[in-house]
Amino acid sequence: MTVRASDPTGLHRVLDDRVVLPQAAERLDTRKQLWPDEVRIRVERLNLDAASFRQLERKHRTDDGHDGEAVRREVLDIVSTRGKMQNPETGSGGMLVGTVEEVGPDSPLGLKVGDHVATLVSLTLTPLVIEDGLERWDGRSEQVPADGYAVLFGRSIAAVIPDDLDPALSLAVMDVCGAPALTRRVVAEYVQPVVAVIGGAGKSGSLSLAAARDAGAQRTVGIVPTEEERKLLEDSGVADQVVVADARDPIALRDAVAATGDLADVTVVCVDVPGCEGGAILATADSGTVIFFSMATSFSAAALGAEGLAADVRMLVGNGYAPGHAAYALELLRADAGVRGLFERRL
Amino acid sequence: MTVRASDPTGLHRVLDDRVVLPQAAERLDTRKQLWPDEVRIRVERLNLDAASFRQLERKHRTDDGHDGEAVRREVLDIVSTRGKMQNPETGSGGMLVGTVEEVGPDSPLGLKVGDHVATLVSLTLTPLVIEDGLERWDGRSEQVPADGYAVLFGRSIAAVIPDDLDPALSLAVMDVCGAPALTRRVVAEYVQPVVAVIGGAGKSGSLSLAAARDAGAQRTVGIVPTEEERKLLEDSGVADQVVVADARDPIALRDAVAATGDLADVTVVCVDVPGCEGGAILATADSGTVIFFSMATSFSAAALGAEGLAADVRMLVGNGYAPGHAAYALELLRADAGVRGLFERRL
Repeated sequence: MTVRASDPTGLHRVLDDRVVLPQAAERLDTRKQLWPDEVRIRVERLNLDAASFRQLERKHRTDDGHDGEAVRREVLDIVSTRGKMQNPETGSGGMLVGTVEEVGPDSPLGLKVGDHVATLVSLTLTPLVIEDGLERWDGRSEQVPADGYAVLFGRSIAAVIPDDLDPALSLAVMDVCGAPALTRRVVAEYVQPVVAVIGGAGKSGSLSLAAARDAGAQRTVGIVPTEEERKLLEDSGVADQVVVADARDPIALRDAVAATGDLADVTVVCVDVPGCEGGAILATADSGTVIFFSMATSFSAAALGAEGLAADVRMLVGNGYAPGHAAYALELLRADAGVRGLFERRL
Repeated sequence: MTVRASDPTGLHRVLDDRVVLPQAAERLDTRKQLWPDEVRIRVERLNLDAASFRQLERKHRTDDGHDGEAVRREVLDIVSTRGKMQNPETGSGGMLVGTVEEVGPDSPLGLKVGDHVATLVSLTLTPLVIEDGLERWDGRSEQVPADGYAVLFGRSIAAVIPDDLDPALSLAVMDVCGAPALTRRVVAEYVQPVVAVIGGAGKSGSLSLAAARDAGAQRTVGIVPTEEERKLLEDSGVADQVVVADARDPIALRDAVAATGDLADVTVVCVDVPGCEGGAILATADSGTVIFFSMATSFSAAALGAEGLAADVRMLVGNGYAPGHAAYALELLRADAGVRGLFERRL
């Protein structure tokens, strides 16, 4: 048998006939034996992407909630069929926490056996084997206790979970750490911009609000869907202004943001529901930027929406990676009791 | 009967139960009577979005090509069902050419009856009625001769077709005029960047190459799928370098761009085939920008692909609108015989 040489992208684990990257692959090779630049993780917990979990909930909805057992079976089926956890409908995955089990001699990741880590690359491209049938999970939460193993490539990213924080808290922060990193960068390109964050009371939303303030926003506006979330976000002090609006109603969203004083220079979309593109565009001033972090974003709805509205806005695909993103997000959380409180109440 | 007041976004023509913008709507009101800020166009020709037309071709593929009659019927069905031409699969539409038939007293568009115009907003949000059954179209080309009417809103955009160019040529240029406008803007943010354009011999691709050169690129690289297109693009002189690579093969694309000297600082994706996200990201240097103009782009593939590759690249959703975009694209075409030649051979 000839074994393919490894590629830092993980190409050598792709089983598809076409040459595609692991993220685009139908099926990955989950063999336990490592290539020299790989690392194997003993999995403790999966953290499913919110858009993916919501889709599974919707699909298996019942009269009194959803069928957790059916969700559990479907996740098991996806992982065994594809060799990775990638929701075929949403295309999204999530991340995982575990302990380093073996490090290939050529791995560039700087990890050592026994390190407690979170993977910061998506589950959609991570070879994964579940060995316990997810028996400790009831299918009712994005947090999935699991036993099994996963493989990291040369170009993957994993962060050691800090000692001073609850691991579940660190995981929740790292899961969304691309959002504050990119928000900081974009906000810093403007002079004292107005920053609106749709879904401001959520995980990526509250960190993005904190990042916007840190990066010099003139004022920050958190947009939330309910009175309950309004109170939560107001009490946290993370946003300068908080407004309730349905982000799927473009006119309501535009009017709600305008009523705070001005349209936003930077709008950050952090809610995992479809159909927020038009509202985000209309809520943004000319020459402003919309950053889409929601995996429920439709590329064509954004592109054609802006064109159709003759909106001169820049639209960014939220890249989950930026150098130093995990450290920055943890720093924001440690420095801001309001952000920390919003996270802790979700654990 | 109460009639809703008009909104510049066209909201008053949306027939859905939920409040959505016309682009996101299932169905539009195509009544002929205008609201005061609207304009009605007598349609001459539709220009279907390439991704949409390809999808229809694939769906109705036959042993010796595709069933043009079935494609024609499906387009008629979409337009009569939805009140607009929006491919339910790709979400995309196209544009149209026609003559101004009536101008509402409050229209801000500056058009007058008899103006020969192209609409620069997508067909996906333009109320449209086809009155000739598309009888002059064989379903085998994106260019669709048609008789009927369409409605423009207060915030729509239409450009008068210039006298000095073949109308079909102007239409082809205006159809993709967002691409060179955004490319110019992004290229100008870098100092002498390397710019790679995937699909460089196509319409948006060749204009993007010309815009990159105009905006100060150090060198431009056109990427094409075949030897035939390589020769075409080389002969046109529009790109400094031309390479053949399959954009769906991420490793091949990365290696092809690297072989020209360096990875690209700005990569522009102008090919309407799915699966080019990973290659575009890998072909782009750290701190570079990828501009996605293809309607075949998958938001999650781009977002998760960059994260999964730990790629510190900025990714832009190609906005089809920028102020002055049509005039700039026409100016590039007039000034560059190579670009003009590439367009004229497609007419």
